[in-house]
Amino acid sequence: MSDILEKIKAFSSEFNTKISPYFIKPEGYEKRVMEAMEYAVSNGGKRLRPFLMSETAKLFNVSQDKVFEAAISLEMLHSYSLVHDDLPAMDNDDFRRGKPSCHKAFDEATAILAGDGLLTYAFEVLVKSSYLNDVKVKLIELLSRGAGGYDGMVAGQMLDLYAENAKDEKNPLELISRIEEMKTGRLLQYAVEAGAVIGGATQEELTALRKYARGIGKAFQIADDILDVTGDEQKVGKTLRKDDKEDKLTFVSVCGLEKAKEMAFDLIKNAKEALAPFGAKAETLKDLADFIIERDY
Amino acid sequence: MSDILEKIKAFSSEFNTKISPYFIKPEGYEKRVMEAMEYAVSNGGKRLRPFLMSETAKLFNVSQDKVFEAAISLEMLHSYSLVHDDLPAMDNDDFRRGKPSCHKAFDEATAILAGDGLLTYAFEVLVKSSYLNDVKVKLIELLSRGAGGYDGMVAGQMLDLYAENAKDEKNPLELISRIEEMKTGRLLQYAVEAGAVIGGATQEELTALRKYARGIGKAFQIADDILDVTGDEQKVGKTLRKDDKEDKLTFVSVCGLEKAKEMAFDLIKNAKEALAPFGAKAETLKDLADFIIERDY
Repeated sequence: MSDILEKIKAFSSEFNTKISPYFIKPEGYEKRVMEAMEYAVSNGGKRLRPFLMSETAKLFNVSQDKVFEAAISLEMLHSYSLVHDDLPAMDNDDFRRGKPSCHKAFDEATAILAGDGLLTYAFEVLVKSSYLNDVKVKLIELLSRGAGGYDGMVAGQMLDLYAENAKDEKNPLELISRIEEMKTGRLLQYAVEAGAVIGGATQEELTALRKYARGIGKAFQIADDILDVTGDEQKVGKTLRKDDKEDKLTFVSVCGLEKAKEMAFDLIKNAKEALAPFGAKAETLKDLADFIIERDY
Repeated sequence: MSDILEKIKAFSSEFNTKISPYFIKPEGYEKRVMEAMEYAVSNGGKRLRPFLMSETAKLFNVSQDKVFEAAISLEMLHSYSLVHDDLPAMDNDDFRRGKPSCHKAFDEATAILAGDGLLTYAFEVLVKSSYLNDVKVKLIELLSRGAGGYDGMVAGQMLDLYAENAKDEKNPLELISRIEEMKTGRLLQYAVEAGAVIGGATQEELTALRKYARGIGKAFQIADDILDVTGDEQKVGKTLRKDDKEDKLTFVSVCGLEKAKEMAFDLIKNAKEALAPFGAKAETLKDLADFIIERDY
């Protein structure tokens, strides 16, 4: 447990030095949007998605350096989603990991533009990366679908907004499972897909890794819902007990705390089993799975 | 003049039948975002950018059918920028071409997501298109840079927000020229670049076409500013005289009406001259240039 935390921290610190040069500012006043983009990306996040991508690529003996471009692109896309999600018209969150959210640190218009800029930049970074064209095309294909409005992240955000007024939903567990799958699951899945594509995985290996990603993705959301109830606001770095106040559908409100813990535990167990084909090489990914439900922030 | 209008209308009508199938709705409630995306794209626009791309590709004997995928991608990206630009925190426009803007027809959160979805979809359409991988990569490279936060469309929107409070700007003409270049010019330039890339243009041909695009782009903005002062609100389909009320820097407020007309005329003249290498093949592009400053809507 403490070992995996050390690994994540070491990775995250190297990742931060790699992403920083992407935010060169232009001369004119328009630089404000690049400043807001950088602010949004430098939010003290754990860089779980980049770490997940890197560890997946390692299964195929890909060096960490070769993964950074795709990982930076993904983190930009992830950060855009947080910036827009925090907007007053969306989740209306003034804080993100203990710091003012982008529209509070800058202003609403700048935050909208910063999100747009980060989303656009995510594709620019991929397309200008050093990967072969075939790899670039495959990555952009997976990322754009996974982040999109049909059954990707944007669709999940739309469904999440609906769920706010769905107290009488007949099958609330199915609803919140679909939200999780699209809203947060798809990008976590993309993290392993990208690592696998860069590593030249076979179809079977990709299937196994997707199963792992789906498991930890859902467990991650359940753990977040549990933390919202049991967590320490200082450690988690955001307003907790908000879901409760808003009478929101969550895995805890729908299934109860004990059942939610059990579900998360089973998901992690199955996720780790999916990694069997990779043997000892997948130890870190297994530790990461455990970390996801054992973390207290 | 009437001839070019007929051509644009015929193209636009075919374009609309081609873009419509891209908005297949999923089953669940998340379909709302796809509905908003379709609404935003079906806004009765003239489809100038797609037409420009198609006419550019025709210089290289590329059939209209081969251009549609890239043109649809560009129109999605253009539409996203309008949806976000109309938001209350941005330009706060309730109408777009005579119809309620996206956040009025739906709601603000849905409009934010619809814009995000369209921007993402623009890249998905390109990457899943039938072009060769080399062409896809080149197009995505040009589009992402042109739409981006460093010196692309998003940077232009940022600078435009700044200009609202820049009454005492020392060189206002330079400022609004830079805004135009980034905010609207880059995507118009991309339209010809994409047509040229699909057509396999030489570097010299690309340079000539970029010169043309820059000229008509700037003239287009000047014509818009003139229409804001002299236009018929019913025909133009949006609230006019808003710039004046807001004491906004425009080519007309900075240079005066006559000087602005003269500038637009000169830009169009030079833009047409840049097409000389293409001879008679470029007649429609020349007519389009004239249309841009002669239109009354």
